Amino acid sequence: MDYKQSGVDIDAGNEVVRRIKGLARATFTPGVLSEIGSFGGLFRLGERGQGDPVLVASADGVGTKLRVAFMSGVHGTIGSDLVNHCVNDILVQGAQPLFFLDYLATGRLDPDVAVQVVGGLARACRENGCALLGGETAEMPGFYADGEYDVAGFIVGSVQRDRLIDGRRLAAGDVLIGLPSSGLHTNGYSLARTIVFDRLKLGVHDDVPELGVTVADALLAPHRSYLPAIRPLLETSPGLIKGMAHITGGGITDNLPRVLPSGTDAVVRVGSWEVPPIFRWLERAGAVPREDMLRTFNMGLGLILAVAPADADRATGALRGAGEQGARVIGEIAAASPGYAPAVRYEA
Amino acid sequence: MDYKQSGVDIDAGNEVVRRIKGLARATFTPGVLSEIGSFGGLFRLGERGQGDPVLVASADGVGTKLRVAFMSGVHGTIGSDLVNHCVNDILVQGAQPLFFLDYLATGRLDPDVAVQVVGGLARACRENGCALLGGETAEMPGFYADGEYDVAGFIVGSVQRDRLIDGRRLAAGDVLIGLPSSGLHTNGYSLARTIVFDRLKLGVHDDVPELGVTVADALLAPHRSYLPAIRPLLETSPGLIKGMAHITGGGITDNLPRVLPSGTDAVVRVGSWEVPPIFRWLERAGAVPREDMLRTFNMGLGLILAVAPADADRATGALRGAGEQGARVIGEIAAASPGYAPAVRYEA
Repeated sequence: MDYKQSGVDIDAGNEVVRRIKGLARATFTPGVLSEIGSFGGLFRLGERGQGDPVLVASADGVGTKLRVAFMSGVHGTIGSDLVNHCVNDILVQGAQPLFFLDYLATGRLDPDVAVQVVGGLARACRENGCALLGGETAEMPGFYADGEYDVAGFIVGSVQRDRLIDGRRLAAGDVLIGLPSSGLHTNGYSLARTIVFDRLKLGVHDDVPELGVTVADALLAPHRSYLPAIRPLLETSPGLIKGMAHITGGGITDNLPRVLPSGTDAVVRVGSWEVPPIFRWLERAGAVPREDMLRTFNMGLGLILAVAPADADRATGALRGAGEQGARVIGEIAAASPGYAPAVRYEA
Repeated sequence: MDYKQSGVDIDAGNEVVRRIKGLARATFTPGVLSEIGSFGGLFRLGERGQGDPVLVASADGVGTKLRVAFMSGVHGTIGSDLVNHCVNDILVQGAQPLFFLDYLATGRLDPDVAVQVVGGLARACRENGCALLGGETAEMPGFYADGEYDVAGFIVGSVQRDRLIDGRRLAAGDVLIGLPSSGLHTNGYSLARTIVFDRLKLGVHDDVPELGVTVADALLAPHRSYLPAIRPLLETSPGLIKGMAHITGGGITDNLPRVLPSGTDAVVRVGSWEVPPIFRWLERAGAVPREDMLRTFNMGLGLILAVAPADADRATGALRGAGEQGARVIGEIAAASPGYAPAVRYEA
């Protein structure tokens, strides 16, 4: 009896590691000192260690969007979902990414699928200037169904302490600017799949006339990275952005209050941005109450930032100049009773 | 139709997050600037940012040891397995831990199990002086069987560049010192479970006369952290340790060569340390060839370090003084043909 008979193939795993090494090496930035395969990945801080640096770290998964990847056999976009999600999670505090690590777990390792997934991670890391510094590929017989896997990502970025963005300075009158999402991003997939596959009984390759694309294309649209849009503002106008929220699980309703100081609410004007067709389709097909839509999906806004009223035009202009044609004012900060937790008030 | 009907309970998730916050807060070290629940966790480098700091990062899982936790209903020790594994993975390069993040994925979230798992992570973080800076708790209906979950960990530590340990200075004649493991640690569980449950048909609560404990106690013994033993050597005798290997999946056979420079081999003297009863029991019960044992299990050595011959007595003495009574010389570095990949040669 040996390890292979018990369901784990060390040689197949080593072969995947060899193929992954090449993918990861292409993402290496000047800070990387190690090779993939070392016990730990080494990243030299260099000049980012000067001053008073704060490391910003986040862990995330892709959630049940993975199920759509399994159904359609498309594994190359999951990497963008995971990396961009993580990049945005630290970006909202003002941090720029240094490195990323992944955890990929399967029941029985399919080398081609593993390489597709990690290839997607590597491509997204490169697009964000972030090194894929390491990771773990785990073969766990009996834990995952054949052809299935789970993948988690970990990111570390840095920001100078005096450039941290934490929403603390937000005050009544500050202006909220929304940036468009590219679809569902990575949230609300359990509900979306129930509507699409159980209620509408669609197949993953079926066309959706309301959207003009297939179910797979609609549901697998990759999560966007807002780094290219936000980085110029961070670098040229420190202090301009007073707060930022990444609109993930829990929607605008649960995410925007995470950066609001006590004594404030956010007033969000529904109708100030166009809710993309995919959300209107899901809302109608699932007969989902609007309140649940807003607490489940991003509804077309992937990132919301807040600036002083006097800076609103400059910020919107800069964002449009960076390619964010859809940047628009979607509401403002309002005074609220300090005794209550900050919340979002939706107004017409 | 709302999110709860689709299998995800946001309120239950929020309740878990609230309970986890308290556990994590108890691990916070002076560097932590954020609260759990921020988009990213914030860690101020402070004086560790001075000089030429290198961040060392690693991602890992617990593997199929989790299955034993599921069978026995014991979820509190998995945290030690995961945190200590990660701590050791960066320790072998000379780094001390700064912070840790976790990814916990389930099909349907059982708040009590989640709190047991994260409680164990928090306790192990505290024992290692490492902040539990954040994490992700994912509820993924249909991905995991009822009562099952997967958990991954991600650690970041730091070391000054001139104190990095990478094995590069290892040379023929250097002495290998082994430190005892506490059991299987987190590797070889697919094979161990096949032997114990399929071949011997034991139950998880059955006694193992050869070991004097139950199957659960034998298989769930937590992975050790070698930080308390190694830290004094790193701090008082920089440069003394020339290389270190954490003996994980692949055993001594695959892990020790990871730190050997080209032109060297490791000579490991079997019989120079006592192979603990659990390995002898598995070897016999599974009729596992010795070669496979050495490439699957740690065989009683969880960490191997290498020092110059003149430093061997001092290192062994210091390790014993730090509580490592089992520290012993187990072999040495030998010259090898530069054309071949470094390997382990087992000698009697």
